[in-house]
Amino acid sequence: MPSIAIVGASGYGGTELLRLLHRHPSLDIHLVAAAASAGAPVRTAAPNIPDRAGGGELLDTVDVEGLARADVVVLGTPDEVSLELAPALLAAGTRVVDLSGGFRLDAATFRTWYGHEHTAPVHAMDGTDPAVYGLTEHARESIAAARLVANPGCYPTATLLGLIPLRELLEPAGIVVNAMSGTSGAGRSSRDTLQASVVHGDVVAYGAPSHRHTVEIETHGAPGGMSAPIVFTPHLVPMSRGILATISAALRPGVGQADVDATLADAYGSEAFVHVLPVGEFPRTKSVHGANSCLLSAIVDERTGRVLVTSVIDNLVKGAAGQALQNVNVMLGLDEAAGLDVIGVYP
Amino acid sequence: MPSIAIVGASGYGGTELLRLLHRHPSLDIHLVAAAASAGAPVRTAAPNIPDRAGGGELLDTVDVEGLARADVVVLGTPDEVSLELAPALLAAGTRVVDLSGGFRLDAATFRTWYGHEHTAPVHAMDGTDPAVYGLTEHARESIAAARLVANPGCYPTATLLGLIPLRELLEPAGIVVNAMSGTSGAGRSSRDTLQASVVHGDVVAYGAPSHRHTVEIETHGAPGGMSAPIVFTPHLVPMSRGILATISAALRPGVGQADVDATLADAYGSEAFVHVLPVGEFPRTKSVHGANSCLLSAIVDERTGRVLVTSVIDNLVKGAAGQALQNVNVMLGLDEAAGLDVIGVYP
Amino acid sequence: MPSIAIVGASGYGGTELLRLLHRHPSLDIHLVAAAASAGAPVRTAAPNIPDRAGGGELLDTVDVEGLARADVVVLGTPDEVSLELAPALLAAGTRVVDLSGGFRLDAATFRTWYGHEHTAPVHAMDGTDPAVYGLTEHARESIAAARLVANPGCYPTATLLGLIPLRELLEPAGIVVNAMSGTSGAGRSSRDTLQASVVHGDVVAYGAPSHRHTVEIETHGAPGGMSAPIVFTPHLVPMSRGILATISAALRPGVGQADVDATLADAYGSEAFVHVLPVGEFPRTKSVHGANSCLLSAIVDERTGRVLVTSVIDNLVKGAAGQALQNVNVMLGLDEAAGLDVIGVYP
Amino acid sequence: MPSIAIVGASGYGGTELLRLLHRHPSLDIHLVAAAASAGAPVRTAAPNIPDRAGGGELLDTVDVEGLARADVVVLGTPDEVSLELAPALLAAGTRVVDLSGGFRLDAATFRTWYGHEHTAPVHAMDGTDPAVYGLTEHARESIAAARLVANPGCYPTATLLGLIPLRELLEPAGIVVNAMSGTSGAGRSSRDTLQASVVHGDVVAYGAPSHRHTVEIETHGAPGGMSAPIVFTPHLVPMSRGILATISAALRPGVGQADVDATLADAYGSEAFVHVLPVGEFPRTKSVHGANSCLLSAIVDERTGRVLVTSVIDNLVKGAAGQALQNVNVMLGLDEAAGLDVIGVYP
Repeated sequence: MPSIAIVGASGYGGTELLRLLHRHPSLDIHLVAAAASAGAPVRTAAPNIPDRAGGGELLDTVDVEGLARADVVVLGTPDEVSLELAPALLAAGTRVVDLSGGFRLDAATFRTWYGHEHTAPVHAMDGTDPAVYGLTEHARESIAAARLVANPGCYPTATLLGLIPLRELLEPAGIVVNAMSGTSGAGRSSRDTLQASVVHGDVVAYGAPSHRHTVEIETHGAPGGMSAPIVFTPHLVPMSRGILATISAALRPGVGQADVDATLADAYGSEAFVHVLPVGEFPRTKSVHGANSCLLSAIVDERTGRVLVTSVIDNLVKGAAGQALQNVNVMLGLDEAAGLDVIGVYP
Repeated sequence: MPSIAIVGASGYGGTELLRLLHRHPSLDIHLVAAAASAGAPVRTAAPNIPDRAGGGELLDTVDVEGLARADVVVLGTPDEVSLELAPALLAAGTRVVDLSGGFRLDAATFRTWYGHEHTAPVHAMDGTDPAVYGLTEHARESIAAARLVANPGCYPTATLLGLIPLRELLEPAGIVVNAMSGTSGAGRSSRDTLQASVVHGDVVAYGAPSHRHTVEIETHGAPGGMSAPIVFTPHLVPMSRGILATISAALRPGVGQADVDATLADAYGSEAFVHVLPVGEFPRTKSVHGANSCLLSAIVDERTGRVLVTSVIDNLVKGAAGQALQNVNVMLGLDEAAGLDVIGVYP
Repeated sequence: MPSIAIVGASGYGGTELLRLLHRHPSLDIHLVAAAASAGAPVRTAAPNIPDRAGGGELLDTVDVEGLARADVVVLGTPDEVSLELAPALLAAGTRVVDLSGGFRLDAATFRTWYGHEHTAPVHAMDGTDPAVYGLTEHARESIAAARLVANPGCYPTATLLGLIPLRELLEPAGIVVNAMSGTSGAGRSSRDTLQASVVHGDVVAYGAPSHRHTVEIETHGAPGGMSAPIVFTPHLVPMSRGILATISAALRPGVGQADVDATLADAYGSEAFVHVLPVGEFPRTKSVHGANSCLLSAIVDERTGRVLVTSVIDNLVKGAAGQALQNVNVMLGLDEAAGLDVIGVYP
Repeated sequence: MPSIAIVGASGYGGTELLRLLHRHPSLDIHLVAAAASAGAPVRTAAPNIPDRAGGGELLDTVDVEGLARADVVVLGTPDEVSLELAPALLAAGTRVVDLSGGFRLDAATFRTWYGHEHTAPVHAMDGTDPAVYGLTEHARESIAAARLVANPGCYPTATLLGLIPLRELLEPAGIVVNAMSGTSGAGRSSRDTLQASVVHGDVVAYGAPSHRHTVEIETHGAPGGMSAPIVFTPHLVPMSRGILATISAALRPGVGQADVDATLADAYGSEAFVHVLPVGEFPRTKSVHGANSCLLSAIVDERTGRVLVTSVIDNLVKGAAGQALQNVNVMLGLDEAAGLDVIGVYP
């Protein structure tokens, strides 16, 4: 049975991956590591994981040699840690899925948007050993062959699943994306602005107009690529999980609802994890709470000549750990849905 | 002392107006009426209003003759009720501020967006006795003279306070407005989709692309008016109160941050209820929880040539009862801030 | 493969059971019925259930003959409907698990607390064909043999799992139980007090001192039974799911922390779904969000001579559909954990 | 006009006091100080306070000499800071209201429950210059004369307002208090357990059985005083503000609902800030959101011979800054309700 290791297992991405792996029929958990929390039981970071499902296991230290014995290592670490760990793990002979933003951009773009050099010898898009951008539904073959997969950001996942199939139907200019996220998207952070007293009963925009996910969306699927910049504005809403992306784009002349419907049906009709709702229904984030699903709707407004696409995911599942596991399954030649056939918890 | 009467006092707009009137130094509450709840004490609809502030008073029946003895009547009634009551009250000699959507559009536009004829003999914009659109900061003189004021919708208030001053700086085409509202914006409704079990931990778009507030924004202040349609998408977020409007618009050539800043400072520098935040800060809805304030921010993105305006109000105060009282003050020649000098409750 | 049918499948208990059944390896879903929603797809009541998991199936009408072909029928119906359906189904030869309060009390007690006669010919505790009270961990043998299982209420489940093992250690008098529930405990109701605008940011007691779950707790496991009444006060808190029961009881002379610990370990040490936390930790409801688990803590306060037991469950899982499925598994001789080995979603 | 100074003005108690002082007609704000945030504008801690209401003022440093020029200083500081500052300020000739727990217990009790010596030369109850426990409705005369007022804790305020008037009617033994609080009760803290991702959709007990407010309740009003210990269990619920205390106590023989009603009416019939609801209604925390009110209900259960009292306050107003201002008004001989006649924001 192939094996997996996790680094950063005490973060929200890591604990979510452990939840999903519990039901995986054909993947051995080799090592579960966390830098700061090493030695503590998994349960302290994940009170939902009972001992019978691994909650009592102690978190391991981060040791490249030990980790590299797994067939794949998933990194739930900050950018700067991933920039160091991923090359080391690749050099030691294993494969890597990285949840951070460290390998999603080419080195020049990275420098512009992150404000410092990209220090890793492997680059997202321009190296000799390039990272593959792991939006599973749109990159299966490359992912299967990849040694390093850059797992997409949560906002880009929700947005690109809506935008990519429609690329040929849209005017590249003037695309506006507004997205709303629950607080877990910010990770297990103790920032003042993530305190419950601040967040309850509140909604606020942040990070605009230069949130790093903007360029990630442009690079990996916006119709005009980086030559037709999009407007991306994220918001924090008072809930733990869930992302809603609301996308407005002008349609090319002659494109109507039927074209949009047919294109989306063609793209996702046989997909297990992306569902298109009937025209007129809007997806709600809670429908995918805990699930690896993306729900999409698209409605054409003839008055404005634009299409409105709304897309929901659970930021910790399809937006992080779920998609990572989906990618691991693809990389290892396993059933892509293994461990992911979990229905969301509603209401 | 001039007097005020309220109809629909058991709705959220009505109870909020009662809260504010409690501190009004120079306005006599003549009558507090509610159709279905007549005979019940105010406290049953407004558990926040103690007896010493009128919570024990019984709600009155709706009687035009009695109401008309007040100097101004505020209608917190549904569209179809307002369409009947407002003309009757005007005929009986009093003045009216209407919180419904009944008088915000000309008759033809009303027919198109509401799906039925506008039956009242007074029209919003085209009658012989026209209603004045009561966005106070931008229509003081007309409001002072008006017999019928159509109080703006909550979404249009948040949006237009941001858009109107910037009209000359913006390209009229391609304006995209996304707005998020707490549930009280839907009124005291028992709709399934407003149940707490559904709303908790959830965000969802609704009503797009033909929400009636779209045309209200176009009619009353969007740069291109009704000839340059905007995209307006409202969302429901899990909180009781508050609206955030996020507006993206292309700037005319040569317009920069300094122009935007100067224009907003010019528009609102001496206003008591509209505040512009420093560039880079984003307003949060909870900052105005319970207050008649609008907080605005505007940041220019040179990369896209667009401006991002975010605007927050409390939908029940500046978006309904507060602005209604502000308009009543203007109509009666009172201090515009009377009864409204209340600071929001944070956190 | 044995088969199951569901009545009331559009309620929260029903949709939750469908979610769990999706992963059940050895139970055939025979019929999914709902009175008012018959003909609508499951997805309209359960937006979390995708078509591949049955979301597109149409809800059936309620037909005793058809239902009776299943090996077990689970009733997610109101009391008065269950009082009619259960006897009819038993007469038609199938077995029943009832989620309502219809069969949890003997006829005389039912009359006192429900205010009307118990009309069904089968009684909870005094009939010739008695219903078995289905608190699984404490009644496995009776459940296995039962034709009619009265599934425990959500509050009694959380409370009794804490109280029953400790019975011999407690003074029967003066037991005080306070419980807090999310809104889904009230079902898919459109009551005014369950509106999101009312519930957000609010906590309130209700139903005390005569909530029907009081006598259910006394009847089925409180140390003094019905001769030593308990004080039970439920509260509504602003969340969708979850129950916390906080129990205070006086200890018999000489009983200490070690006795309490040993007793609980003895009762639940080998249970899959009930876990006792280390002394000093308190369980949080979110730890079991979506899971069939109960987390318990018990701390002895020598100063007052009392023990404080806190107990959390997900009201829709261990407090309703999960325990119902656990009982079905026991009745049919299947693996008790089949379909229930799902980890909660946190955070 | 008398003057007031505030220390710890960037904490939730401090900013709330500033909100209330804005409407105070007869109190001059002399100095607004905050240790760590000195030099920052008030607005950074209190985004609800606009510049016209002091939001732009810079927070001052903590300087005893400057502070002492005010007639009263309110300390919104941690225990250990108050233990130093209060004596220094008293020595410098001013009067003090302290929001911390530093002066609510006699020195011996303090040592037992806080785990270290009480270092200040003034003691809550046993010094030569004793602090007065400032539960306004029950200690007006002492407060008027006091130089140092220990402002009650939030839980004790909610609990004692319910318990004190009923003392003669209750059996002292076996009183059980459960309380639920919003997160602002923990102050502007960045503790992990107060993160929004943790708190949303969650309820949990904490601190029992030895939370310090237990002994504060016993000391200042529980029927049996410290010789009949109470059981006190606080819980954290997912909201920003509000406390609900649910109190169960056995009635003395012969005491019935009429006695309870009469006693409460006698105690609070003429109080501006404490209201008793009709029997059968339960107060909700949101009814007093932002207000200085306490709503009480009391229902006798003849079956158990006990009374159930529920009591709600806003923890930051009647539970902290509001009661502090009420005490300041009493100390300075001003109208007790000055600055406090604000109605809560609902819904």
